[in-house]
Amino acid sequence: MLHLILADSELETVPPEISSEKSIRWKAQRRGRKPTELILDSNYDHRIMRKLPDSERRGRPDIIHVCMLAALDSPLNREDLLKLYIHTRNDKIIDVASETRIPRSYNRFIGLIEQLFLTGEVPPEGPLLRLRDGTLRGIVEEINPEKAITFSSREQEFRRESLFDEVKKEDDVCIIVGGFPHGDFLSRVGELSDEIVRIYPEEFEALTAVTHAIHFYEDEFEVLKGSFNK
Amino acid sequence: MLHLILADSELETVPPEISSEKSIRWKAQRRGRKPTELILDSNYDHRIMRKLPDSERRGRPDIIHVCMLAALDSPLNREDLLKLYIHTRNDKIIDVASETRIPRSYNRFIGLIEQLFLTGEVPPEGPLLRLRDGTLRGIVEEINPEKAITFSSREQEFRRESLFDEVKKEDDVCIIVGGFPHGDFLSRVGELSDEIVRIYPEEFEALTAVTHAIHFYEDEFEVLKGSFNK
Repeated sequence: MLHLILADSELETVPPEISSEKSIRWKAQRRGRKPTELILDSNYDHRIMRKLPDSERRGRPDIIHVCMLAALDSPLNREDLLKLYIHTRNDKIIDVASETRIPRSYNRFIGLIEQLFLTGEVPPEGPLLRLRDGTLRGIVEEINPEKAITFSSREQEFRRESLFDEVKKEDDVCIIVGGFPHGDFLSRVGELSDEIVRIYPEEFEALTAVTHAIHFYEDEFEVLKGSFNK
Repeated sequence: MLHLILADSELETVPPEISSEKSIRWKAQRRGRKPTELILDSNYDHRIMRKLPDSERRGRPDIIHVCMLAALDSPLNREDLLKLYIHTRNDKIIDVASETRIPRSYNRFIGLIEQLFLTGEVPPEGPLLRLRDGTLRGIVEEINPEKAITFSSREQEFRRESLFDEVKKEDDVCIIVGGFPHGDFLSRVGELSDEIVRIYPEEFEALTAVTHAIHFYEDEFEVLKGSFNK
């Protein structure tokens, strides 16, 4: 099984430092939330986010949205061979049930994530997403995989052929992918990874890393082919 | 080179039949557009769309948005081995320049597509997306590929191994993927395809078809590996 972790994801609620800004208060009022219950979104909050450290990378729920859409619809997930985790910059973890259907509408997705941060689980009638405190190290230790691989544009060269060396289909493999737009991991991935690999010479988006991780695994274990033989 | 066509995409402006509806007129006024200049969006226009034929599948710009994000960021596109085309239900074609950067914000994407349907090309200072009239048959004939393959859940079995048989890297290959949420192609893909293949027993989303088409090609021609040897 592939355990796919979006690590250091730039997903968080509005921090107290900017919660009294007028545009945030207006948005909160319109949505019937407290300012600090809103999800930080650089698409809309860009200007006032300049007051925050690391402002140029924070507030990217859109990354999580498209990555979840791609991962959860994949054949790998439909074959129950994928487990997805979102780890955030503030050491929150979202456990994602494989049967989750993510709203295709961005606004509805934001509403869902707001509710998740408020109540700890959604939907109320049968939770599929659960939020808890935890570090990247903590998740990897829980999974206790045969092999933990991190995708990073900062390291080594491509090694597609040997990626799953000594891994069997019944083993737990962990692939860690950055859930942020650019720059480096905040967590110490080096200590947690058996291997750090670069699959392409240039940086690319989290979505591309997610789909490639899934496809490498689907290929190695012939998941698509196997699905016809059941 | 891979020519990837999103065919019969459910991308269109608001049809005259519903353009006088109050909610459409309000939205038009807010956006400073005529009602028929707006992009039909089932996320927002769902209720009034019931008056339209095929209403349960129409108005899905979100599909095009995520597919473009995934395709244009792919290593295949960065290596200049991908050409993307959007063909729509009303026989419009969008030619997509490979250097296009699609807005990650859905609202900005909709604004861009509105402008494209209005003026025929965007952005004005150096067009990357161009809109023209044309059929799916027309695009395939223009490309004149060595092999044209359609992905469909309605046909045959998986044949990953033989997908690119007799195709060389310098050849033009065409993969046709449905740009609609469910159901079948409106265009006659059978007449245009050398092969119709089903890559998974269940229906899945256009995004999944797009990423798999790209990965199959990247794999077959070792695009990721080759990128390190330049």
